[in-house]
Amino acid sequence: MNATIINIGDELLLGQVVNSNAAVMAQMIAQAGFGVERTIVVGDNADDIRRAIDESIQLTPIVLITGGLGPTKDDITKHLLADYFGSELYENSEALATVTRIITGLGRPMTELNRRQAWVPKCCRVLNNDVGTAPCMWFDHPKGVIISMPGVPFEMQWLVQHRVLPTLAQRFSVGCIVKKNILIEGIGESFLSDLIEPWELALPKELGVAYLPVAGMVKLRLTARANTVSETSKMQSLIDNAVASLQPLAGKYIVGYDAETLEELVHRELSAQSLTLAAAESCTGGTIVQRLTALPGASAFLKGGVVAYCNEAKHHLLNVPQNVLDEHGAVSEPTVIAMAQGVRRQMNADYALATTGIAGPGGAEEGKPVGTVWVAIDSEKGTEAQLLHLRGERQPIVDRTVNHLFAMLLRHVRSLQ
Amino acid sequence: MNATIINIGDELLLGQVVNSNAAVMAQMIAQAGFGVERTIVVGDNADDIRRAIDESIQLTPIVLITGGLGPTKDDITKHLLADYFGSELYENSEALATVTRIITGLGRPMTELNRRQAWVPKCCRVLNNDVGTAPCMWFDHPKGVIISMPGVPFEMQWLVQHRVLPTLAQRFSVGCIVKKNILIEGIGESFLSDLIEPWELALPKELGVAYLPVAGMVKLRLTARANTVSETSKMQSLIDNAVASLQPLAGKYIVGYDAETLEELVHRELSAQSLTLAAAESCTGGTIVQRLTALPGASAFLKGGVVAYCNEAKHHLLNVPQNVLDEHGAVSEPTVIAMAQGVRRQMNADYALATTGIAGPGGAEEGKPVGTVWVAIDSEKGTEAQLLHLRGERQPIVDRTVNHLFAMLLRHVRSLQ
Repeated sequence: MNATIINIGDELLLGQVVNSNAAVMAQMIAQAGFGVERTIVVGDNADDIRRAIDESIQLTPIVLITGGLGPTKDDITKHLLADYFGSELYENSEALATVTRIITGLGRPMTELNRRQAWVPKCCRVLNNDVGTAPCMWFDHPKGVIISMPGVPFEMQWLVQHRVLPTLAQRFSVGCIVKKNILIEGIGESFLSDLIEPWELALPKELGVAYLPVAGMVKLRLTARANTVSETSKMQSLIDNAVASLQPLAGKYIVGYDAETLEELVHRELSAQSLTLAAAESCTGGTIVQRLTALPGASAFLKGGVVAYCNEAKHHLLNVPQNVLDEHGAVSEPTVIAMAQGVRRQMNADYALATTGIAGPGGAEEGKPVGTVWVAIDSEKGTEAQLLHLRGERQPIVDRTVNHLFAMLLRHVRSLQ
Repeated sequence: MNATIINIGDELLLGQVVNSNAAVMAQMIAQAGFGVERTIVVGDNADDIRRAIDESIQLTPIVLITGGLGPTKDDITKHLLADYFGSELYENSEALATVTRIITGLGRPMTELNRRQAWVPKCCRVLNNDVGTAPCMWFDHPKGVIISMPGVPFEMQWLVQHRVLPTLAQRFSVGCIVKKNILIEGIGESFLSDLIEPWELALPKELGVAYLPVAGMVKLRLTARANTVSETSKMQSLIDNAVASLQPLAGKYIVGYDAETLEELVHRELSAQSLTLAAAESCTGGTIVQRLTALPGASAFLKGGVVAYCNEAKHHLLNVPQNVLDEHGAVSEPTVIAMAQGVRRQMNADYALATTGIAGPGGAEEGKPVGTVWVAIDSEKGTEAQLLHLRGERQPIVDRTVNHLFAMLLRHVRSLQ
């Protein structure tokens, strides 16, 4: 049972805003057992939207649309859908009640624009939006269903979870996807593919495998589709066997399972072992701490971090001795070690991570090209520093450094067990 | 002269990876004067890819494809394109030379998989990829051109800039887009739309306007298309007039122009005035510093930051007095003021920003629900603190806090002039 996702908006089409809605929607509906066949982005243009809707409902029985529902003049989806179904707009009393509740709850007067949000095509069924002023609209079509919802990310997420998926589940019977993510670090995609070729060729045909390289890490994803409970447990055991047989080939590169990112694994391991962490960052500019705090619950293990972008901060806040900075420079092994030790002491943490390097595009020095990065881990067992030579642009260099350090940390923490 | 963008990959379709390539490509080709009509994501499935290519070349004369060119078994684009054009693969000597140069430059032996990267359909023209092992392929089609390139973001960007756009410019004659971004903070999209309705209705028909709400900020984008140099300057002056006439209506909410994000404006203002900045973050978890350091050149003004996720760090590293923490709590006006003052002194900066609040989902206290956030700015002129009540999930709360604080900082810094 496949779906097409259509995201409407000039800002998405022209790339001013990255289309994260498509990713979030796809994950949510795939998790619920629906397939995703295609996602499309079109601008705020009636002909383009109409063509996309028309093609999509021919292609898949479920068409999910976001965007173009705001009250401003460039938002035209609602009018177009009314026209498409030969219907007309009317003020829906349930939708009006919601809009009124939200606007007055904010202590604001209802404007004409707010009121317009409650107008919907007569032929649609309103799926009430509890968290925003634009209603979600469900249209029955001879070929399937077309569902239109606002593009505001948290409203879309709330609607998909609480309204769209439950209503789809009543209408269509679906299976589910059994999946396993294997996070691999320390080997590139090509080399990994060579290394595990025999394993891949021997996989049962029910299993799909995908390589997802992300900033120096490869996520290997095994998936299988199941339509019944007994099929689900069969697919689960096929996947378990495949995971077990991968271990002898690639075990030393495997950092973890069942996570999308290394920071999820760091959360899980440190929380489970009641260990605390601090970070001292130079070239990664706060990315270590930002990625960890982007997930809820970081305060359980994260003491905090220092971003020491200047030598002054390295010296004052992290107690990196001035003569180390003078003799060896900011991008050096003694500096990164002193940073890790300094922040661990200051924050009174079990583990500390540190980075100092040249992320570019400027800042290269004689013998220290862009991509020269020192990383270190400090704990009561001692300090380990590593020198990385990374290629690419600023952001990939930062992301790879952080991924490498998270993988190093996970290996350190596990060696305790 | 319009283009369709097709991004191939199960990881994009299923949302494991957010499709930032589409945004980057769209911006680059729109900047070069081409229109973007649609972007499509399909999985690693031959039928779906073929259908997308076939439909797209009927729709627009330019079709740009990324992905499915890696050496692993799930990458099928190249074979499919050979088949689509009734051609076959051969080893292209120029492509092989590039692959060999890159692999041996990394000090690695050439593998069979590496070598396979140099195989391309006979009917295509190779646009050499200097920065990666997958070549870019240009196919002439009776309806236009189809261009296939790797999905690795920095390779794609390099290829679009250095190979695809120059080759397209030889083939098609294009105009350009004249555009102006107006960054607005402190008013929601609906209220802004009401406020500036008369201005919007009076805009000349050559100008397009779009509202791009992002985390508490609205980016208002004015665009116009020009085909000649004299048209370009005419459109430029229409836009200048529109910007000038917006000022009396909405001037107090306008934070800046010609930027995509507030951090770009912060970079520009602080660098121009040779001012330095430091940050002390609690609930924003490093996002202030991370967003500033994501842009090159941050070291010109950013001294650094402290992420004080625990009270210990607030006390030790930022010198927040223990009795302030005990009496008022971590989320309080006295604490945020002490954090801002503490980090400014520690880092010896001209300005300091501080945040402390409850980003959720946990952590709410009596009288301090999720979304309660204190922010402060400290400088030699004194300290300003503000209490924000934000709605939504963790990430939007963090993003709105940071946007609000950047807007506050810009207003402070400009009041100096």
